[in-house]
Amino acid sequence: MEEWTVEVHHSKTKKNKPKTDQLEFGRLFTDHMFIMDYSEPVGWHDPRIVPYEPLTIDPSAMTFHYGQSVFEGLKAYYTPEGDIQLFRPDKNLQRLNRSNDRLCIPPVDEAFVLDAIKQLVFLEREWIPTSDGTSLYIRPFIISTEPFIGVAPSHQYKLIVILSPVGAYYKEGINPVKIAVENQYVRAVKGGTGEAKTGGNYAASLKAQELCAQKGFTQVLWLDGVEKKYIEEVGSMNVFFKVNGEVITPELNGSILEGVTRNSVIQLLKHWDIPVIEKKISLDELYEAYVNGTLEEAFGTGTAAVISPIGQLSWDDKDLFINGGKTGKVAKSLYETLTGIQYGREHDPFGWVEKVNETSAVK
Amino acid sequence: MEEWTVEVHHSKTKKNKPKTDQLEFGRLFTDHMFIMDYSEPVGWHDPRIVPYEPLTIDPSAMTFHYGQSVFEGLKAYYTPEGDIQLFRPDKNLQRLNRSNDRLCIPPVDEAFVLDAIKQLVFLEREWIPTSDGTSLYIRPFIISTEPFIGVAPSHQYKLIVILSPVGAYYKEGINPVKIAVENQYVRAVKGGTGEAKTGGNYAASLKAQELCAQKGFTQVLWLDGVEKKYIEEVGSMNVFFKVNGEVITPELNGSILEGVTRNSVIQLLKHWDIPVIEKKISLDELYEAYVNGTLEEAFGTGTAAVISPIGQLSWDDKDLFINGGKTGKVAKSLYETLTGIQYGREHDPFGWVEKVNETSAVK
Repeated sequence: MEEWTVEVHHSKTKKNKPKTDQLEFGRLFTDHMFIMDYSEPVGWHDPRIVPYEPLTIDPSAMTFHYGQSVFEGLKAYYTPEGDIQLFRPDKNLQRLNRSNDRLCIPPVDEAFVLDAIKQLVFLEREWIPTSDGTSLYIRPFIISTEPFIGVAPSHQYKLIVILSPVGAYYKEGINPVKIAVENQYVRAVKGGTGEAKTGGNYAASLKAQELCAQKGFTQVLWLDGVEKKYIEEVGSMNVFFKVNGEVITPELNGSILEGVTRNSVIQLLKHWDIPVIEKKISLDELYEAYVNGTLEEAFGTGTAAVISPIGQLSWDDKDLFINGGKTGKVAKSLYETLTGIQYGREHDPFGWVEKVNETSAVK
Repeated sequence: MEEWTVEVHHSKTKKNKPKTDQLEFGRLFTDHMFIMDYSEPVGWHDPRIVPYEPLTIDPSAMTFHYGQSVFEGLKAYYTPEGDIQLFRPDKNLQRLNRSNDRLCIPPVDEAFVLDAIKQLVFLEREWIPTSDGTSLYIRPFIISTEPFIGVAPSHQYKLIVILSPVGAYYKEGINPVKIAVENQYVRAVKGGTGEAKTGGNYAASLKAQELCAQKGFTQVLWLDGVEKKYIEEVGSMNVFFKVNGEVITPELNGSILEGVTRNSVIQLLKHWDIPVIEKKISLDELYEAYVNGTLEEAFGTGTAAVISPIGQLSWDDKDLFINGGKTGKVAKSLYETLTGIQYGREHDPFGWVEKVNETSAVK
């Protein structure tokens, strides 16, 4: 695909950009989007940047019926010097193709799609907010568009990238949340689609989320679908615990999403010589650590929050107040360093950031 | 909703109707569709029959990202007397609302939607094919349309009903298929969405289906996601076995779809005084029955095929040839009686069929 170019159709109108204090997550989108089609035998074709507008899709398109779809989420940040940068976008595109494989969707050319994303972000650079903690959220997604309601992989797809300016996740500083252990509903199971970023996993999570919110919790802690004994994820984030000086996180087992932030946290901890271990973690083991006073910190990791400290973890008649309900030292350091690298305030020793500039637009 | 009426916008053009020998499943749709919208605080509103045409939906609509969608499938049949009838449509609408509940989608008025379906079918009656084994497939589905990419239940939905004339499932008579036991991939797990008719379950099934087809099998037999030991479904059908004169089927456990055909088969067997038991069925137990010669029949049940006899069941180094690879007596009787009732060739002692006629259109 190296010789391909992205055709650009400029929008004739421009929306008003929101003020910083009006920014929220995922409700407002920029003036343009990227689209590329797949059909057989051509493969992926017709990459183009077009005005952001509604899609026109047949009601029999598979995506409406059988959930054959995948997505990704990453962000573009402004540095203090006015540079635009992405954080490990190659990891998102690698995961997109892993998700594609699980969902029987044809793979995309990762380098080409990354170039297209950079070109779109550069075109929309005035939409990237500059206030502290704000960013431009990038949502690539693939939907199956063949007008056929048989249960089979689609022969037609659309890859679309939309952009949304988002406000700071923590408006009043990083803040711990209350989490309820979910023991009825299951998000994913080994052999299922848990490690793919596909709609069905999120659809499955809504009911538990709704019920826990009614009880005053922010998110649920998901247990494994087989024994309902081992910890998997928290809400739509990966989860870490600090126990007796060591940081532990559930090992990837086929039902856990391999988070880009998760991977970055592990690398950063190793870089700091803090022991970090990926392993099966039972809820019992965690409770024991709490009781004997060695459960020092708990936090979720994800693109939206980066680090989300867990101040309280509850199930049955148990309420664990972790680190006195306050943000722990490791969580705070991780948050500051990761956001520091993402926003270009700190040196990036890992080669994680990628610049977006004029050359991104010249392809 | 009793006072509601469905507004009808007639299509200005009419498509050519296919010849019987050109009919296949789910690729061709009729001239009209039914749509109803949901938004807050109004609830479901604006029920209408409109020309079949592409939907115009924002690229940020939740349905493209988080799989919050449900569907149903049923058929309209012509009787030899020229009557149009549906088979147990109330069961489909009850299940639609159960699926809605699991997916956090607001419930629909079942009686009203059934009336709307009848009105649409009556309007499109010339599309119902009349040859043996043909029918008009009815696909109600609900998609989440709020333009918001946060993970939360949508506040906007569309219920859409589309119709597709379908050919005979068995063009050369009912015929047994080869099934492979799936021991890597999982369709659903207890606590997940398996008993809801939602896209994610079908998306999860595609990979296993693709791999088994490469090995020459028609469908996979799904095992439970916890122990991978107990039989759940076959392809997208429920499954039954006849062992030593008794018919057995996996009991509903939260991860198995409650099929309308499954329910009808159980009632019909009881009506015939054939013992039928819903219970956990292990693959080991089935193998034992095969070895000692008491596994007499195996068949899947679903709206598309009605009854699909299993002639061969394979896993590891085992190939079970059931009833000599031929359709069993019970499977054949069930097929003939169920299709007899559906097509109005046989008396319906259960009150399963519902007529669609002029009065359906007068609301």
